[in-house]
Amino acid sequence: MASDSAHTAPHAPLDPPARLLLGPGPSSVHPRILSAMAAPLVGHLDPYYMQVMAETQAMLRPIFATANALTLTVPGTGTAAMEAAIANVLEPRDNILVCAKGFFGQRMADVARRHMISVQVLERPWGQVFTADEIAAALARTPVKVVAIVHAETSTGVLQPLEDIARVVHDSGALLLVDAVTSLGGLPVDVDRIGIDVCYSCSQKCLGSPPGLGPISLSPRAVDSLRRRQTPVSPFYLDLGLLAGYWGPEHAYHHTAPISSAFAFHEALRLVHEEGLAERYSRHVRVAQLLCDGLTAMGLELFVSPEVRLPTLTTVRVPPGVDEPMLRRRLLEEYNIEIGAGFGELKGKIWRIGLMGHSCRTENVLLLLAALEHLLSDRPA
Amino acid sequence: MASDSAHTAPHAPLDPPARLLLGPGPSSVHPRILSAMAAPLVGHLDPYYMQVMAETQAMLRPIFATANALTLTVPGTGTAAMEAAIANVLEPRDNILVCAKGFFGQRMADVARRHMISVQVLERPWGQVFTADEIAAALARTPVKVVAIVHAETSTGVLQPLEDIARVVHDSGALLLVDAVTSLGGLPVDVDRIGIDVCYSCSQKCLGSPPGLGPISLSPRAVDSLRRRQTPVSPFYLDLGLLAGYWGPEHAYHHTAPISSAFAFHEALRLVHEEGLAERYSRHVRVAQLLCDGLTAMGLELFVSPEVRLPTLTTVRVPPGVDEPMLRRRLLEEYNIEIGAGFGELKGKIWRIGLMGHSCRTENVLLLLAALEHLLSDRPA
Repeated sequence: MASDSAHTAPHAPLDPPARLLLGPGPSSVHPRILSAMAAPLVGHLDPYYMQVMAETQAMLRPIFATANALTLTVPGTGTAAMEAAIANVLEPRDNILVCAKGFFGQRMADVARRHMISVQVLERPWGQVFTADEIAAALARTPVKVVAIVHAETSTGVLQPLEDIARVVHDSGALLLVDAVTSLGGLPVDVDRIGIDVCYSCSQKCLGSPPGLGPISLSPRAVDSLRRRQTPVSPFYLDLGLLAGYWGPEHAYHHTAPISSAFAFHEALRLVHEEGLAERYSRHVRVAQLLCDGLTAMGLELFVSPEVRLPTLTTVRVPPGVDEPMLRRRLLEEYNIEIGAGFGELKGKIWRIGLMGHSCRTENVLLLLAALEHLLSDRPA
Repeated sequence: MASDSAHTAPHAPLDPPARLLLGPGPSSVHPRILSAMAAPLVGHLDPYYMQVMAETQAMLRPIFATANALTLTVPGTGTAAMEAAIANVLEPRDNILVCAKGFFGQRMADVARRHMISVQVLERPWGQVFTADEIAAALARTPVKVVAIVHAETSTGVLQPLEDIARVVHDSGALLLVDAVTSLGGLPVDVDRIGIDVCYSCSQKCLGSPPGLGPISLSPRAVDSLRRRQTPVSPFYLDLGLLAGYWGPEHAYHHTAPISSAFAFHEALRLVHEEGLAERYSRHVRVAQLLCDGLTAMGLELFVSPEVRLPTLTTVRVPPGVDEPMLRRRLLEEYNIEIGAGFGELKGKIWRIGLMGHSCRTENVLLLLAALEHLLSDRPA
């Protein structure tokens, strides 16, 4: 099992343990998606693949709740989609206001700085949300081209309300860029109604596909900002103009699309629409509530207050006296269940329990609660 | 079949046609690889996945013929690996000499310019190779930090000899950066013996896995150049220092690894080593020769002269009077065989026939030749 076996038996066949994935992602993948991914490939310029791309776009738009023409998947993970979002709508020396209330907000600031964008960070303690007023005040002091904020902060389990913020951002003339990595497909994102200009996510959380694709959608205003650029987009691989040229009717070659991942993602989107968005969102709320009730009944303390608690990812405080890494290791080794650790300033202090996509089922909650109860009662007094 | 069906039936299940992929990649994927990819997922920080990563590195190094510690896969296609190579070993205002003798050489120059690297392009007509002398002369005029060259040019079917070039590049003090996208796993690349400092490839050609991963290897000298950088690597997603931190013993989180693609790639590498590198390389030469003989016997003219002809990708001139796109379309629709078109200055003038990985088999050559013969004899006189 250890990595040093690589030298003695590098050619042993894969034999992955049967994990139940209840961490911050990837989620467990529905068997129909795994089957779709194992279909023999077609070429990336095959008419059949063009059909798959068009259907993917048609199925993605209602999930983003948008009519945005530029809606596609970036050929990389959610981090690639984040970088694509930032590096395309902003040029070096443009300015961005990043609202950071957790790890991924900080990461947006880091990514923007690398692209020589002028970054202003508005900070909130991890676990809290921003109000529209404080963002309006920041914009009154320093107007910016883009305001970036995380909808569902994977590091804390907080759900950021966006409606009022969208209004103050647009009143200032800025574009609103939203990270929906842990929300898209699990709860309403409402790109058009709220007025999100750039919205991105990933394939492996609430959408339930394997990791490797980053869905993204740009409003016409955001597309205009691409057109008005004075400089080329620095990462060629993530140039949304070139990606849109490949996804559009001309199908201009840019990269060799990850065909199998796209097949999987197509099936994942089919499952979303078969279930229906309303039912899917209510399932995520219902199953998360069951988990929260169970954790509370066990005497554990939830990290986030109920009004801004994220249904897709629940954070719970590690009780005093518990060996945090040991409990997670035992959960993995003895019960084959993965949950997430806290990180950054929450390292050792919380667990992160994801109930997303196919992982978001009542039976998984019951099993996890039973396993946790067993392990916690097992600890030395 | 047309993309407008997306609006009427976006939810139809996938039903891809059974293509034989004889274009420039992706290659047809071995069923064992498709099965491995469909295995249920584990998390990207699971001890089992760490083992898969370590075994992948251990199996990759002999294919690059290297002992380089920094040998891993970038979570994107060959284009992502190209950009990672360039954007990591060079900083803005550093200079690079790009030896361009086809489309992908030109792309390297484009990528470098986007990263504000000072680019000097040495050009050769498409279909030719460079001599060490002309590169030495260029370096004598303007010393550079990096010389970049494509080993196997996918746009032309030319194999660039590297030994003498490596010597003159190193004599000048520069690093040698080599694109092995269409060679790695199909013919010897010999990173350590030749002295290639940065070498990258893709998963979907001679290695025979689905597209989506970019193997890359850096020499200790190239790693030193990363350490001496004054500025952070601009694309966060492709920062090799962060990627190495995730692949290394500390397994520091950087992105959510494309687990399923990594499972597939692990099985692809197992197949390479089961066959053995020497046998695999000689199969690629043998099967390509069969194709060349067959095409010549049909009266077709090969585009590249024999001494620099690439075994993995054969380019052949479109005979006068043949409707090039129509023939390719009929080959696809009537025989389910994909071959590649020429592009750039070779658009309409050549076909590109890939015999790579699992596609590289005698029976595929016989079928293609028979189909081509039928379609070419079918043309109006």
